[in-house]
Amino acid sequence: MHCQKCGEKAVINMRQHKLSLCKSHFLDWVPDQVERSIVRYRMLTHHDHLLLAVSGGKDSLSLWDILFRLGYSVDGLYIGLGIDGGVKYSENSLKYALNFARDRNLFLHVIDVQAEYGETVPMMTMRTLRGRNKPCSVCGLAKRHVMNQLARSQGYDALLTGHNLDDEAAILFGNTLNWVGSYLIHQGPVLEADRPGLVRKVKPLCRMYEREMAAYALLGGIQYIQEECPHAVGSTSIYYKEILNKLEADRPGAKLSFYLSFLQAKRDGLFSPTADERAESVHSCPKCGQSTSAPGLCAFCRMFFKDKDQLVLDQVDGL
Amino acid sequence: MHCQKCGEKAVINMRQHKLSLCKSHFLDWVPDQVERSIVRYRMLTHHDHLLLAVSGGKDSLSLWDILFRLGYSVDGLYIGLGIDGGVKYSENSLKYALNFARDRNLFLHVIDVQAEYGETVPMMTMRTLRGRNKPCSVCGLAKRHVMNQLARSQGYDALLTGHNLDDEAAILFGNTLNWVGSYLIHQGPVLEADRPGLVRKVKPLCRMYEREMAAYALLGGIQYIQEECPHAVGSTSIYYKEILNKLEADRPGAKLSFYLSFLQAKRDGLFSPTADERAESVHSCPKCGQSTSAPGLCAFCRMFFKDKDQLVLDQVDGL
Repeated sequence: MHCQKCGEKAVINMRQHKLSLCKSHFLDWVPDQVERSIVRYRMLTHHDHLLLAVSGGKDSLSLWDILFRLGYSVDGLYIGLGIDGGVKYSENSLKYALNFARDRNLFLHVIDVQAEYGETVPMMTMRTLRGRNKPCSVCGLAKRHVMNQLARSQGYDALLTGHNLDDEAAILFGNTLNWVGSYLIHQGPVLEADRPGLVRKVKPLCRMYEREMAAYALLGGIQYIQEECPHAVGSTSIYYKEILNKLEADRPGAKLSFYLSFLQAKRDGLFSPTADERAESVHSCPKCGQSTSAPGLCAFCRMFFKDKDQLVLDQVDGL
Repeated sequence: MHCQKCGEKAVINMRQHKLSLCKSHFLDWVPDQVERSIVRYRMLTHHDHLLLAVSGGKDSLSLWDILFRLGYSVDGLYIGLGIDGGVKYSENSLKYALNFARDRNLFLHVIDVQAEYGETVPMMTMRTLRGRNKPCSVCGLAKRHVMNQLARSQGYDALLTGHNLDDEAAILFGNTLNWVGSYLIHQGPVLEADRPGLVRKVKPLCRMYEREMAAYALLGGIQYIQEECPHAVGSTSIYYKEILNKLEADRPGAKLSFYLSFLQAKRDGLFSPTADERAESVHSCPKCGQSTSAPGLCAFCRMFFKDKDQLVLDQVDGL
């Protein structure tokens, strides 16, 4: 197997693209592909002041590396969720994020959920009804809230996440199996800041396979936390990824085609604009100012404040 | 395992419905479920004069049996496609259809494609560019044309097919993986006759699992052709059924939920009415009068007449 650009020994064969590349050409090919997505979906400009959510994993750190190489101005945000899971998950992932930023002289915000809100995500999960068995739902809610809050208060032009194609395809697969209209309408590489209190969200890796990103981090010498979050084991998204991996193994390119044909159908006007409007009839949370689908506190503030007050009331009642 | 209606020994356990039934209650439950679909989707009335496409397989014969038991007036239509495949597929399936109709004193139209159009479906496949490797595409086109033509010329109120939930879910899965907007918009239990030359199409078994229909035929003593069409081996629809069977095995009810949530999303207005209009801008075929998406001959008449003329011209050119 030889590199199709220079004829040297290839290190990776991407059946989905009918392309094999050597290390050097692969490490150039990935940023080039990301830049194409950025242009294709009008994601960013070089004047934007950008905030990237950094987990310490291969996708977010590789994306930071790629955007740095492409000359974008990107700060990082690490959110300490207080997840131990027997492997000191949060503690270790923070180290990788800090080392990465220090080595490249990049700025990393660190927000610790417990320091900020008095509880870690696992503690919060124990207390609320949300996601009774797993903290993933609570965790997603907390991360979205904290990311958006910081991006807004510090005036960033966009909030970036490291979602790769496998992530996006798995989300789409779930939304399609259940035909959740409002989620389908809002899924895409760019979520515009068209609601009060919401920052523009962008996913520059949406066309990159997970396998390509793992290879990029490995070959590019990026040190990242290799463990999955201990709570992700057995999750629905991993199950959907397995199904999509089977499809991909049988028909290389299936994942990419699934995601891209969805985006094309959206652009072609498959979804109703009125369904979109309905999904977008939103309110402002009186506590944090972020947008919410129903009047009153947003889901995050309900979870962090109201449930807590209710707990106190319940305890008083119990006396 | 006991019947949940009478406590007798159950013959079937339907995990997707959390229901086990004895033979007698199962044989009543199936028509009851079909009647519910008929009412739910406003499929038919007892005044309608109905035409059912009968292949000689378990679904179409069971559906004929069920509709007969429910008191609907249904004639059958068997289309002789001239498929042998080493198992005399067409010859044998015709026998099952004829025997079924004779035993119940029902009327069966028989149309032989070769007698009518001069060629069997496999012969046609050899000649055209359509479905070069497999006759399935040509076969589907021919069946749709013949069914619609007869239903129209004989004034039937609706054309019924025996598509079960597994068929419908597999079609939906394919349409979703490729996000084919016009197919998604038109998929459903009822396709109204809202285009010139088109007869209303109805799928009364759309909520019945394939396994339930196989059990119904078996327990109800319906004799049917057990072989799959020899050309179906390795087809995309069977591949999609395997994927959906895996989902169903892991999460009983997944297939039904996938299909029903799609129908609900459609009813809720997820799809754009303009996308619908675009998909419905149709023309009339000058040869057969059926609707077609582009001006000129419809795909069927092109295949049966124009390609043939072209072949003659090519042969003349080659002299």
